[in-house]
Amino acid sequence: MFKLVLIRHGESTWNLENRFTGWTDVPLTPTGIEQARASGRLLRQEGWEFDLCYTSVLKRATHTLWHCLDEMDRTWLPVVHSWRLNERHYGALQGLNKAETAKKFGEDQVLIWRRSYDVPPPPLEPGDPRSERGDVRYANVPEREVPLTECLKDTVDRVLPFWNESMAPAIRAGRRVLVAAHGNSIRALVKYLDGISDSDIVGLNIPNGIPLVYELDAALKPLRRYYLGDQEAIAKAAAAVANQGKA
Amino acid sequence: MFKLVLIRHGESTWNLENRFTGWTDVPLTPTGIEQARASGRLLRQEGWEFDLCYTSVLKRATHTLWHCLDEMDRTWLPVVHSWRLNERHYGALQGLNKAETAKKFGEDQVLIWRRSYDVPPPPLEPGDPRSERGDVRYANVPEREVPLTECLKDTVDRVLPFWNESMAPAIRAGRRVLVAAHGNSIRALVKYLDGISDSDIVGLNIPNGIPLVYELDAALKPLRRYYLGDQEAIAKAAAAVANQGKA
Repeated sequence: MFKLVLIRHGESTWNLENRFTGWTDVPLTPTGIEQARASGRLLRQEGWEFDLCYTSVLKRATHTLWHCLDEMDRTWLPVVHSWRLNERHYGALQGLNKAETAKKFGEDQVLIWRRSYDVPPPPLEPGDPRSERGDVRYANVPEREVPLTECLKDTVDRVLPFWNESMAPAIRAGRRVLVAAHGNSIRALVKYLDGISDSDIVGLNIPNGIPLVYELDAALKPLRRYYLGDQEAIAKAAAAVANQGKA
Repeated sequence: MFKLVLIRHGESTWNLENRFTGWTDVPLTPTGIEQARASGRLLRQEGWEFDLCYTSVLKRATHTLWHCLDEMDRTWLPVVHSWRLNERHYGALQGLNKAETAKKFGEDQVLIWRRSYDVPPPPLEPGDPRSERGDVRYANVPEREVPLTECLKDTVDRVLPFWNESMAPAIRAGRRVLVAAHGNSIRALVKYLDGISDSDIVGLNIPNGIPLVYELDAALKPLRRYYLGDQEAIAKAAAAVANQGKA
């Protein structure tokens, strides 16, 4: 049996300001740092060991991993960064306050963009200063693969090749894997692993900074899935995520 | 022409307490963190870009790299950790206060251990709780390669295979490399690159937290070597290192 642990980054400055973040590279808040460190302490107390870590190329996920590894005294573990684990790209909504966007476009439209599987928000114009095309960290990614917007389906479609080509082979080879990523890149993995339908995945909320454990069989089919820690606090954290984006 | 940048970690808690550290995994002090961040700011201001980073499996080097990458806004760069970039192992002196050791063994003996090329300090006993044999981070290193003590020659002998097998090929392939390591693992690289004699290398002091730049030709022979930043401050920092271990 294999085990896999997924952690959504802690609270970021734009979570706090209730802005659509997407690929914008904002840092963690002090609360987000503490969430990450608490994850690390929990993993350490429970005796978890890892051989390999994965994260995105965004600092809120990378810092979450670093703080977590720090608390585990495992700062020497190898870390693989991939843009394919980035948050869902939020197109022209990136940087806008969620409540303001709800007032402007209507809460229903925002809910469609946030929670439909295949309706992307309006794209960034290619020349928009917010566009990540031209950012040095994506220099080795073909330009057409650097999104200008994404629906959740698009995110799933770019996460899964990385799962299949890098993560799944590592797990099958017996490497104990820790992933620090984002709400929607984790949703993509959860959707695939648990075989969740397109309509159900949009209602599944991943709380910030709480380790999600998968126990997998030899074919990497889930035997069991659970969050580590205080179950009541976890339910509250998931509910808080669901309430974002309401005016 | 290739460029390579080496940074010795910032001040650690045991630098401050004037203890022999070696492979003991002590953290940076607030000053050490600021030294690392200052390196990052300097590299950023001067427009340096990197493709690949190397560090040891000790947190004072890893944290130096992380703080540096943070200031450069390059937290997404790939990082390779190797025990071969660790500090020189200080054997049975690890944990002892340098001034006390000087009083106990005599300043001359300590200077021999610190500054001879091929005289190692007394080894740790295999059962010594300070021994790193059994530490999970060295689980994949053959036990006989996990040292119980080292002279500088031993350090050079285990750093160079890593240079030859990993670092040099990466540089030759055009990858711009940043290394955050330790006084003696950096000495090992400097000795090799500059062809410094066994007797001269022991007098060469690497200051903490100051980027050391190598410009290399196609055969990786140095064309030029220089520290980045305020040259007077650099000379002072090197002199401070030379004065450690005096009673």
